Amino acid sequence: MTERVIQYLKDNKEKHLAKLNEFLSIPSVSTDSVHKQDVVEAANFVAAYLEEIGFETVEVQKTKGHPLVFAEWMGAGKDKPTALFYGHYDVQPTDPVELWKSEPFKPEVREGRLYARGSSDDKGQVFMHLAVFEAFMKTEGKLPINIKVCIEGEEEIGSENLYEILKTKKEQFNADFAVISDSGMVAKGQPTILYGLKGFTGLEFTLTGPSSDLHSGIYGGAVRNPAMAMAHLVASLKDENEVVKVAGFYDDVEPMTDEERQLIKEVPGENYTETAGVTETVSEQGYTAKEHTMARPTLEINGMFGGYQGEGTKTIIPSTATVKLTCRLVPGQEPNHIQELLVKHLEKHVLPGVTLNIKREPLSAKAYKVDPNHPLIEKAAVSYEKAFGKEAVYVRMGGSIPVVEWIDSEYKIPVVLLGFGTPEDRLHSPNESFPLDSFEKGMETLVYYYAEATNLE
Amino acid sequence: MTERVIQYLKDNKEKHLAKLNEFLSIPSVSTDSVHKQDVVEAANFVAAYLEEIGFETVEVQKTKGHPLVFAEWMGAGKDKPTALFYGHYDVQPTDPVELWKSEPFKPEVREGRLYARGSSDDKGQVFMHLAVFEAFMKTEGKLPINIKVCIEGEEEIGSENLYEILKTKKEQFNADFAVISDSGMVAKGQPTILYGLKGFTGLEFTLTGPSSDLHSGIYGGAVRNPAMAMAHLVASLKDENEVVKVAGFYDDVEPMTDEERQLIKEVPGENYTETAGVTETVSEQGYTAKEHTMARPTLEINGMFGGYQGEGTKTIIPSTATVKLTCRLVPGQEPNHIQELLVKHLEKHVLPGVTLNIKREPLSAKAYKVDPNHPLIEKAAVSYEKAFGKEAVYVRMGGSIPVVEWIDSEYKIPVVLLGFGTPEDRLHSPNESFPLDSFEKGMETLVYYYAEATNLE
Repeated sequence: MTERVIQYLKDNKEKHLAKLNEFLSIPSVSTDSVHKQDVVEAANFVAAYLEEIGFETVEVQKTKGHPLVFAEWMGAGKDKPTALFYGHYDVQPTDPVELWKSEPFKPEVREGRLYARGSSDDKGQVFMHLAVFEAFMKTEGKLPINIKVCIEGEEEIGSENLYEILKTKKEQFNADFAVISDSGMVAKGQPTILYGLKGFTGLEFTLTGPSSDLHSGIYGGAVRNPAMAMAHLVASLKDENEVVKVAGFYDDVEPMTDEERQLIKEVPGENYTETAGVTETVSEQGYTAKEHTMARPTLEINGMFGGYQGEGTKTIIPSTATVKLTCRLVPGQEPNHIQELLVKHLEKHVLPGVTLNIKREPLSAKAYKVDPNHPLIEKAAVSYEKAFGKEAVYVRMGGSIPVVEWIDSEYKIPVVLLGFGTPEDRLHSPNESFPLDSFEKGMETLVYYYAEATNLE
Repeated sequence: MTERVIQYLKDNKEKHLAKLNEFLSIPSVSTDSVHKQDVVEAANFVAAYLEEIGFETVEVQKTKGHPLVFAEWMGAGKDKPTALFYGHYDVQPTDPVELWKSEPFKPEVREGRLYARGSSDDKGQVFMHLAVFEAFMKTEGKLPINIKVCIEGEEEIGSENLYEILKTKKEQFNADFAVISDSGMVAKGQPTILYGLKGFTGLEFTLTGPSSDLHSGIYGGAVRNPAMAMAHLVASLKDENEVVKVAGFYDDVEPMTDEERQLIKEVPGENYTETAGVTETVSEQGYTAKEHTMARPTLEINGMFGGYQGEGTKTIIPSTATVKLTCRLVPGQEPNHIQELLVKHLEKHVLPGVTLNIKREPLSAKAYKVDPNHPLIEKAAVSYEKAFGKEAVYVRMGGSIPVVEWIDSEYKIPVVLLGFGTPEDRLHSPNESFPLDSFEKGMETLVYYYAEATNLE
């Protein structure tokens, strides 16, 4: 049965790529109010496709923010399991635009990769599931199990409204397990079972010195320079050994077990010189890059700015300096508590002579971990191996997908993370791309998986 | 004689203000290549006015950069001294433009102040001298002494080409003393003899980590974040007590004498809450704000930037972080040497995992000091007191005017700094302004001064 479905996908490859390009062309940047209408257009695209495929219920649900696309096909009956397929149709911003080789919303294939913002994160991967549903419906006239679809438009900005919806509409979204493709393999063509994700919290803070920029000759020596004060404040957050110095930050961190250290060792290392262009890796004292990215918390400055940025010289003491920072958390750490520790640290360490103003990032997530031996996880490994011809490795990822932890805590169902991205995809950066190899073998994997998931043992 | 000249100025006040507004309307921003033609237009304005006034020689001299306006009137004869009047017609950039209440190049008078970029620094003050020359010529038919005029277009970007010109064309520019109005009084209406200026050096440096922005979840823990590395590097330059930590920075500084400490004490303090909007002053450990701004070297961050600056959150590790910094120097410190010390410090303290790239600011200046008891300085004090009705105070300023030190070292003539700005002028900032009181009483001061300077004792 799966062979016919897979053949359908092969026969319709060009058509599907053309449709995916349509999807990718919509600049659904959730963080930027300028693109509000584009986001709605992307939601409508997804809903229209689901209707075409034959889902019984298809709704574009209004939220306090961007719309949520919900659909369900319950035609497999009560004896078969129900899967909740989650994805997102919104994408990251594209700056700095001048570094893109082709336009971010004009998809282009180069050397076996599809280049566009969202090709990997997450439109390419969402589309794969929809194409697989279409393939089942067209060849078998039905899906192998019951499917509920939940595709939102706010994942890149923290899924703020989704949490409320998931919490209050349990009947609508309840299922036996969830499936998500919004992550990656450790290397192209290397099946990867993702059994853990990091949590997330953040904030933005500004130091204000003088009420406006000052002549640095006349006022240098009289006032505290907010850029210098900011340097001291930021440097106090993390030392040169990459150890976070915020009091209490590590208190609740679940320590790494020897078993975990071993699992991590078995994961092929990433060649950071190739993928990140760095000459050396730098990690928390006592941990390798693999260990730190997968299983230790982080604190990163995402943006830092104050004063003159233009051509040449401008001899001023800036009025303000601002920093945006985010932390990735591990099991044990509570996001709101960590955010409060950050606030306390900043208030304690800010130098006299400037005023501190903090904007707490309202969106957060706890870390997530599932038992790698769960039957549904094993079925995923088998499906991957069939499609890619290679045994799967088991990893915990440094990124966060907030909805995973919410589904875990609200629904108490396993979340199966079947990702097909690769380290070279350049998520969140210019020149994002997705390998066509992942697109094709990934859809095969999904065909096997949905067919296998007809029983939960 | 001086009464008639002063009366002429009073009778022509409106006409002169209208002409000054014309001058101020030209956006002669020297640092920005976009305004290259405007800079030429401003040079031509000055030359045209000098011709109208009756200067014998008026030239707009091409340089490797912006034009230099030169003029001379030698009609006083060999028995009378020759003064070199120096000024600049270029202005600072206007960003952030949105903070201006009226447009920077549309002069407006509000509450006794003339608002426009350049009204104080330096067009308003240059214009005062030209109007005074016009007044002498129109009422007396001659100037009291020989005058050479040198008005350049690169002061705000370090006067790079002027130094070569002054060095090689000594016959053209030689005089008995120089007069400059490009500085301020310690308070509105308080005659101020400026007998010292600080020197200047600077550089820009960039730290590069990964070759492009990275997903902070996936790569956090594997690479050094250049923004964090920059915070550590900048914080290493100056401690929380405002002491510069660059090795050797203070080695050659001429220490403050007790006599100087006393002179400084007598200068009325600036109310920094009013003029700078700060709640407390912050200065080098062991020095007051007055002492530090006037007589100690400084190191200031003028701009610091890296990563995401837009709306909302962007979870990246930035590829780069950049800082622009400048230092003000005091007598004893040699600018190129200090610049080398800065470079050495940065190379020594940069954290592993990022690459350091330094752009040395080519423009620099030594500090300047003249004997406050020099006869020409005393004449300045007397002229001030006649016009303003108050005794003068003697100060050293935190700002730098590179040409002053060059004239001192190349021509060995006294430089008389007759400034009429006030602390509320907001030089280099939005809403720059110049008090009409300074404009009027300042021109009176100049009439007395040029009349007094007919002998050098």
